Amino acid sequence: MAVVGVSRSDPNSPGTVIAANMLKIGRDDLFCVNPKGGNVDIADFEVKLYNNLSSLPAVPELVIVTVPAEASLAVVKEAAGLGCKNLLLIPGGFTESGRSDLEDQIAEIAADAGIRVMGPNCLGILYADEEPAKGLNTFFIPETKFKLDLEREKNIALFSQSGALGLVELTNLKDSVCPKVAVSYGNQLDVDPGDLVEYFQDESGIKAIGIYIEGFKPGAGRRFFEITRRSRIPIVIYKAGRTAAGQMATQSHTASMAGEYAVARAAMKQAGLVVADTMADHLGCLKIFAMLHGKKVGGRQTAVVTNAGYEKANAADNLKELELAELSGKTSSMLAEALPSFVTVEPLLDLTPMVDDEIFARSVELMLDAPEVDAVCVSIVPHAGMIHTTDDEVDSYEGNLGARLAKIAAASDKPMVVSLTATGGGDNIFGRMIEVMDSGGLPTYLSAEQAMSYLNEFVRYHYIRQQNLIDEWMK
Amino acid sequence: MAVVGVSRSDPNSPGTVIAANMLKIGRDDLFCVNPKGGNVDIADFEVKLYNNLSSLPAVPELVIVTVPAEASLAVVKEAAGLGCKNLLLIPGGFTESGRSDLEDQIAEIAADAGIRVMGPNCLGILYADEEPAKGLNTFFIPETKFKLDLEREKNIALFSQSGALGLVELTNLKDSVCPKVAVSYGNQLDVDPGDLVEYFQDESGIKAIGIYIEGFKPGAGRRFFEITRRSRIPIVIYKAGRTAAGQMATQSHTASMAGEYAVARAAMKQAGLVVADTMADHLGCLKIFAMLHGKKVGGRQTAVVTNAGYEKANAADNLKELELAELSGKTSSMLAEALPSFVTVEPLLDLTPMVDDEIFARSVELMLDAPEVDAVCVSIVPHAGMIHTTDDEVDSYEGNLGARLAKIAAASDKPMVVSLTATGGGDNIFGRMIEVMDSGGLPTYLSAEQAMSYLNEFVRYHYIRQQNLIDEWMK
Repeated sequence: MAVVGVSRSDPNSPGTVIAANMLKIGRDDLFCVNPKGGNVDIADFEVKLYNNLSSLPAVPELVIVTVPAEASLAVVKEAAGLGCKNLLLIPGGFTESGRSDLEDQIAEIAADAGIRVMGPNCLGILYADEEPAKGLNTFFIPETKFKLDLEREKNIALFSQSGALGLVELTNLKDSVCPKVAVSYGNQLDVDPGDLVEYFQDESGIKAIGIYIEGFKPGAGRRFFEITRRSRIPIVIYKAGRTAAGQMATQSHTASMAGEYAVARAAMKQAGLVVADTMADHLGCLKIFAMLHGKKVGGRQTAVVTNAGYEKANAADNLKELELAELSGKTSSMLAEALPSFVTVEPLLDLTPMVDDEIFARSVELMLDAPEVDAVCVSIVPHAGMIHTTDDEVDSYEGNLGARLAKIAAASDKPMVVSLTATGGGDNIFGRMIEVMDSGGLPTYLSAEQAMSYLNEFVRYHYIRQQNLIDEWMK
Repeated sequence: MAVVGVSRSDPNSPGTVIAANMLKIGRDDLFCVNPKGGNVDIADFEVKLYNNLSSLPAVPELVIVTVPAEASLAVVKEAAGLGCKNLLLIPGGFTESGRSDLEDQIAEIAADAGIRVMGPNCLGILYADEEPAKGLNTFFIPETKFKLDLEREKNIALFSQSGALGLVELTNLKDSVCPKVAVSYGNQLDVDPGDLVEYFQDESGIKAIGIYIEGFKPGAGRRFFEITRRSRIPIVIYKAGRTAAGQMATQSHTASMAGEYAVARAAMKQAGLVVADTMADHLGCLKIFAMLHGKKVGGRQTAVVTNAGYEKANAADNLKELELAELSGKTSSMLAEALPSFVTVEPLLDLTPMVDDEIFARSVELMLDAPEVDAVCVSIVPHAGMIHTTDDEVDSYEGNLGARLAKIAAASDKPMVVSLTATGGGDNIFGRMIEVMDSGGLPTYLSAEQAMSYLNEFVRYHYIRQQNLIDEWMK
């Protein structure tokens, strides 16, 4: 493996950061290239700089090109001459900036030489193999701003035309979901999302695939839908270029002809993809499909448990295709026994702020265990004094509600989601509780509306697959 | 002022917490009532407990009732007999729990005696007078979970049928907006949101009113629209009970007959209200109308500045009724001079991750100052290495982007909004930056979609008022 464009002096240059990433994950097959040669220290390793690809002791399997667009053409030619078969082009400055000539020339060389090319205009690949030494990480972002905990279960693949969107989604998912592979594929000179799905769909561990698309190359759309239609795991997609202004913006970002959105949407639905209508929904859906993989969807009968009356109304207003469960006499009497008398037992259960962690959790457990209930949505207003919700309370009290709910969700094979209605800001005092639930495997959102919507998407997807209700899916 | 139901032993009882709140804000006209009498320590004050209202040394202007529903009837009778004119009923357990008989009896007594009643089933009133000693605070929430910085500008009124929704909104707005008055009005036995708007609309300092409504009492809807129609400040409303299930939920929460949502929505639009379609939008709109009060809306010509191509596409896809500004030759050349050559100058300005705080801020300033630009939306992907965005960086570098943008926004009379695409979780490292911008007067949201949507609502409201485009408003 070679990185072309490792700096002799700037530790923050993309090439140098990529080399550092690779050394840190134990790639001992790395060659660094700089025309001036010499030696540099990178991430506490002393690294020799080769003057060019031709002077490497072996032909690299992958060449990562980080030099500017103009200079990359010569590197591609050299790589082709040596018989390299895989190129990753990081720099921008190609078709998206009016230099389609450069991209065309590279495409021709690559086609003639049988080279696969990823990029240009991208962050490249983050790939975590079971053997760390075989992984890849070309995301050249300072560690203080982006760092993944790769020790945890790696359960998604994320393919994003935009590197920044990938970073943002992975940051916002950091407590709950971790990529086995994340690819920022940029201008798709050659490798496109269809190739990526085809290559990675059977990769072990991946429970859901998220894709961000700005546009397809001519002819690539049909192939993409053919490939994704056969996927056995859920694919959640967001497509930009929904308006005329948006289409122009994708053109100057990743040189994408976005086309007519309505047509693309219909084709995506027909391929059985989960189509997110907003970027927020893309994140929210990817999270629930990855986290609740393996849960069983028996039907649409849903119970809601909350400690605030307005969230009861909000959840009810956002049922969508879910239905309120009809509680059996047995469930009702078990709930009545567990709950104080001022709580009215019903499938939209408003516990009021006057119950403690234990009673709150117990009522959720009873709902989830009830045979007539297929799914549960919990909405927590964390201000109630009787439950332990602040960072301090969560850290000091093991029996806190968040920990209890995560345990209950893990023990059940039914889908369950949570809303904790508080956002960020400079001193969010409820962040730890969200982290406890998310990292415990319980998808947590910032509003009942979100939680209900994504639960609906999850139930709908599996229900429709099971029942083969294709017409309904096309809605 | 009297609080009935102050506990002799439980410092967390609603009555005791309310008494503590009042003592802390310097109310020295507070009487506490408990049938058993005696003395208790509350918030480091020694407080005498009177056996009943009749034994108080004076007739209180306001009686706050915190005893259970059943017991409150006797208190109301006693208050009426003494000639008290204002009652605040905190407890639930009335019509929403099937005890409309209790509510009816109280209503009759109040009507006969000319008493105004707020509640029941509510958190009551938070009112910050210029003289702290004249304020009110009946929100009985532990200080560790809810605390407002009342030193800052108090710029909104929030009237919510639900106490919990009020708490959640005030928590999520804490860095940017502060209530002059917040009322949780519950079952509206007497006082309803129409009364509240009528009473507070001319209160000094209030720049926007937010209202959450579950339903109107018979006949109260028409009066509400008559009153709000005359309001000179923006009123942002969210109404629950949008579906059959939601209507049933409001009935059992605050005894509200929600009625047909489509009719209510049309009436709200006709009254000139800003109608939020989701609870998230209610918060987002209230924030922008309060914070940008005083900014001038010259037209719909908008510029977008971002450091990520996908956010350029996202902003463009969410223009709605805003239009992309056409940059003059002068603006274009000033931008070209300020920016590196790899940035393409256009109204959808993608700075790429390769610009620093100073250049980023300067380009925003040039856009905002351009005569052909009416409004600016900035979208920041905080992972870029060249800008100072993490909590550590913001704290250690005065010239950080957030501080610069807040200063630029404050110096301009045009509306400007920001998106910072990162949410919460347990260790959100970008929270301080959001806080710096929000508390600096620059409305900051978690996605370009949100930022564009709320900017659109703000521009639309003022533009339509100025141009008198009533038909367009009804959309």
